[in-house]
Amino acid sequence: VCKYIATKMANSKYEYVRHFEKHDSCLPNCWIIVRVDGKAFHRFADAHAFTKPNDVNGIKLMTRCAHNVMTEFTEMVLAYGQSDEYSFVFKKETQAYKRRESKLMTNVASLFASSYVFHWPEFFPNVKLLYPPSFDGRVVIYPSDQNLRDYLSWRQADCHINNLYNTAFWALVQEGGLSNKEAQTRLSGTFSSNKNEILFSEFGINYNQEPEILKKGTILLRKEIAEEVTITDHKTKEPKSVTKVRKKIEAVNCDLIGDTFWVEHPYLLNTVGTC
Amino acid sequence: VCKYIATKMANSKYEYVRHFEKHDSCLPNCWIIVRVDGKAFHRFADAHAFTKPNDVNGIKLMTRCAHNVMTEFTEMVLAYGQSDEYSFVFKKETQAYKRRESKLMTNVASLFASSYVFHWPEFFPNVKLLYPPSFDGRVVIYPSDQNLRDYLSWRQADCHINNLYNTAFWALVQEGGLSNKEAQTRLSGTFSSNKNEILFSEFGINYNQEPEILKKGTILLRKEIAEEVTITDHKTKEPKSVTKVRKKIEAVNCDLIGDTFWVEHPYLLNTVGTC
Amino acid sequence: VCKYIATKMANSKYEYVRHFEKHDSCLPNCWIIVRVDGKAFHRFADAHAFTKPNDVNGIKLMTRCAHNVMTEFTEMVLAYGQSDEYSFVFKKETQAYKRRESKLMTNVASLFASSYVFHWPEFFPNVKLLYPPSFDGRVVIYPSDQNLRDYLSWRQADCHINNLYNTAFWALVQEGGLSNKEAQTRLSGTFSSNKNEILFSEFGINYNQEPEILKKGTILLRKEIAEEVTITDHKTKEPKSVTKVRKKIEAVNCDLIGDTFWVEHPYLLNTVGTC
Amino acid sequence: VCKYIATKMANSKYEYVRHFEKHDSCLPNCWIIVRVDGKAFHRFADAHAFTKPNDVNGIKLMTRCAHNVMTEFTEMVLAYGQSDEYSFVFKKETQAYKRRESKLMTNVASLFASSYVFHWPEFFPNVKLLYPPSFDGRVVIYPSDQNLRDYLSWRQADCHINNLYNTAFWALVQEGGLSNKEAQTRLSGTFSSNKNEILFSEFGINYNQEPEILKKGTILLRKEIAEEVTITDHKTKEPKSVTKVRKKIEAVNCDLIGDTFWVEHPYLLNTVGTC
Repeated sequence: VCKYIATKMANSKYEYVRHFEKHDSCLPNCWIIVRVDGKAFHRFADAHAFTKPNDVNGIKLMTRCAHNVMTEFTEMVLAYGQSDEYSFVFKKETQAYKRRESKLMTNVASLFASSYVFHWPEFFPNVKLLYPPSFDGRVVIYPSDQNLRDYLSWRQADCHINNLYNTAFWALVQEGGLSNKEAQTRLSGTFSSNKNEILFSEFGINYNQEPEILKKGTILLRKEIAEEVTITDHKTKEPKSVTKVRKKIEAVNCDLIGDTFWVEHPYLLNTVGTC
Repeated sequence: VCKYIATKMANSKYEYVRHFEKHDSCLPNCWIIVRVDGKAFHRFADAHAFTKPNDVNGIKLMTRCAHNVMTEFTEMVLAYGQSDEYSFVFKKETQAYKRRESKLMTNVASLFASSYVFHWPEFFPNVKLLYPPSFDGRVVIYPSDQNLRDYLSWRQADCHINNLYNTAFWALVQEGGLSNKEAQTRLSGTFSSNKNEILFSEFGINYNQEPEILKKGTILLRKEIAEEVTITDHKTKEPKSVTKVRKKIEAVNCDLIGDTFWVEHPYLLNTVGTC
Repeated sequence: VCKYIATKMANSKYEYVRHFEKHDSCLPNCWIIVRVDGKAFHRFADAHAFTKPNDVNGIKLMTRCAHNVMTEFTEMVLAYGQSDEYSFVFKKETQAYKRRESKLMTNVASLFASSYVFHWPEFFPNVKLLYPPSFDGRVVIYPSDQNLRDYLSWRQADCHINNLYNTAFWALVQEGGLSNKEAQTRLSGTFSSNKNEILFSEFGINYNQEPEILKKGTILLRKEIAEEVTITDHKTKEPKSVTKVRKKIEAVNCDLIGDTFWVEHPYLLNTVGTC
Repeated sequence: VCKYIATKMANSKYEYVRHFEKHDSCLPNCWIIVRVDGKAFHRFADAHAFTKPNDVNGIKLMTRCAHNVMTEFTEMVLAYGQSDEYSFVFKKETQAYKRRESKLMTNVASLFASSYVFHWPEFFPNVKLLYPPSFDGRVVIYPSDQNLRDYLSWRQADCHINNLYNTAFWALVQEGGLSNKEAQTRLSGTFSSNKNEILFSEFGINYNQEPEILKKGTILLRKEIAEEVTITDHKTKEPKSVTKVRKKIEAVNCDLIGDTFWVEHPYLLNTVGTC
């Protein structure tokens, strides 16, 4: 039995190894973004026969996972997703996990990944999930509101560019009968206008009428919902009607590059900061 | 259509935001450990009615997930798990993800978490998983072999201490009829020897005969397996028997604090380094 | 002679050690402050018989060194000094040394320290410098203009508090005949109002009339000086008078906590940033 | 007088800005090197008419400064200097400044720089120092003894290579009458053996007989000196002779790439570590 006393003493002897851990708090008064990206999702999409160029069920599953993450982290004000990636925006003054980078990125990435498997059957009821996917994550911090908007604009512009390319590419392959190689050559060096033209004149596709979810990606935000609810008055004991503000996570598929979105949702940037 | 040209140009205008990302490569010539810990697993264990003090199916599911991680990351030499945590050891000279901390910890944590949901039905066929769990992760680096061994000893000593406490605690509650509060008071300030004595004299439990998986936790390592295989000889076209060395991930439940384990597995520390 | 070929080859063999250096660029779009502090300056002041509570020559020497630093680093917009410390403010978008922390802090600290010895004889013509002093340095970054102002206010408020205390302390010792210990006890727990009262009623000192350089510290800034200069006109070859704006480093001793200073020098915060 | 109470309260209001400082402790159980490099020393050497290719007084002044630094930092085991740079090696387990990077590099760089001005007249009694020089500094950490030796070998090999080149270059210019441009062209693409040959056949210089201080640079180390001293015996009150070990900083100019140096000074690497 002396062994266990020895064990306990040994443990304190070993505890010095804790001091090799790094402090990794994010700079205060900055927006914190955690972005997750699917690892090797080309292979994953092929293995599970995702529809090309976009699998709407796959996109909706991503948003379902992001919804889980935003429900768990109440200090997130916004999330933006496209393709196999999602960016989550913590308010500037968040103290979640004492702003520790490791904690923030691993909790988000692991919850996203476990949600993906958990909710899979709801979106792919007839497809067997062959293996569990992984997502890498990173933290990036931005000092100013303009930086934050530029980050999100960067991701949404990326969505546009890739989606237009992919739409044209798969039209050439699936309807035009070109090989992957030929389609690639055909599109090499083309401008957006050329791709639009190809889609319209050769395949009768008006790109502007493609679904917004594909052209813009998905924004998740907390909307404030005013609800009439009936409660019992403390004094009179009579029922009375009051307005209660409830926050609800909503998905929208709209432009966030221009000012309109930000003017319509002023509370997103107006979080009360320490400074 | 000019819109899309503008989009592309806009995108390069926004791309400056990439420079806000940090370089976070681990110092070369050091052991890299990624540890994952279940988030709020007390609540998770209660919600899914895990057996107290230990749910062996839960432990085996953890090891199943760790097996997935080691299969994916071939440069891991060892993993050690106990309770709701698992530590993964990358060899000193690994160049996996260019040794980037964020990539390493998020890929490991997210694969671990998605595996947990994926393999759940194999270990809990009759228990519905109520929600997807998350795991936090961290990277710690150690310069010397001794530091690495001390880290692992720290975790295994921690396993001993907690398991002995929990075994005594739940014996007092489940068999002794004490309330949680009373059991806590009874054990407060006791040494390991006292807990062993309580277990033996009051409940007839010889702690030393408890299963090794509970007392020691689980070590996953790559064993080199020599196999006789029959191949066709290039020249003679005759079948012939040759020995092929194959690496196979194996789980063992033994002491890693003493020297024996390391003497028996010399290749674990003898990875060929850059220096 | 083969030795030297071997040497060169050896050198490339050793060069891997460069990869152990860290990337340490400051986050973009943030104010960068480098603060230097005299190391063990109590001892230094005693050794060189500095006047108590303030040695104005010592203060002026500090400002002379800071002037050198601002002349060398043209992207500094402001410096603030008090006691044995000086803070230097780089504009948000500076690319000096690629914003590398190590480079910024060591160049500033070492130039400050070498200037201190270099200019010593100008301020202490009759005092032999006994040993070379050292200064520690640090980098702190601030995302917003308000954070920057609060940092500077923090240092100036610190100047006030310490100077009032020191003025009272040395009055009690030098004129009041108290021992250091007795003076310390007398001031322990007193408010600023009490110290003012002691100074006024016991020593006839109106603290508000003390020199601004002691109460406020010193601000170094680049003033824009408009000068009339006579040049030769390109076309007419006649002399003509034009206004040229020249930047000149100036020292002022005024309040920077209130808004007045910032309203009067709007260009300090209005640096053109990347975002 | 209320102003000063307000000031104190204001100060605590501003103190939040301290939390923007980074924790920057070096990883435990690693060698810590601080290297200082003269900033723009080509210009400095020209301005003060340093002898080409080497100014031995300039080199000795560098070593005098390094001696100051080693005297101040007693936990340094070794320093190595060549040209306008000096590297300082802290023992692995040093707790100097809690291993904080900023503190270590700025104190070393600033003391080095102030020492340079302070000791200038001893080495250049007839040359007026025109302006104070600055030195940049950096911290690099190395996990293993081999890494440390490779770092030092890298710097010494660099010394060899540069000194041989410079010796040949200035022989061609000063004695051979070539322009700088011509000398550069002549040496371009040559091996060490070619440079040796040029020196010997054209200028009668046997490079191997050049002074060691130029070919090897300078190593500063603490030698243990055993001294016979006479003390008074406690009991007998008689004088008696005892051996006292004293540490003394010594400069040597020898090879540190091979094993000999390390075998002769075993205590350099054998510092007692935490692990």
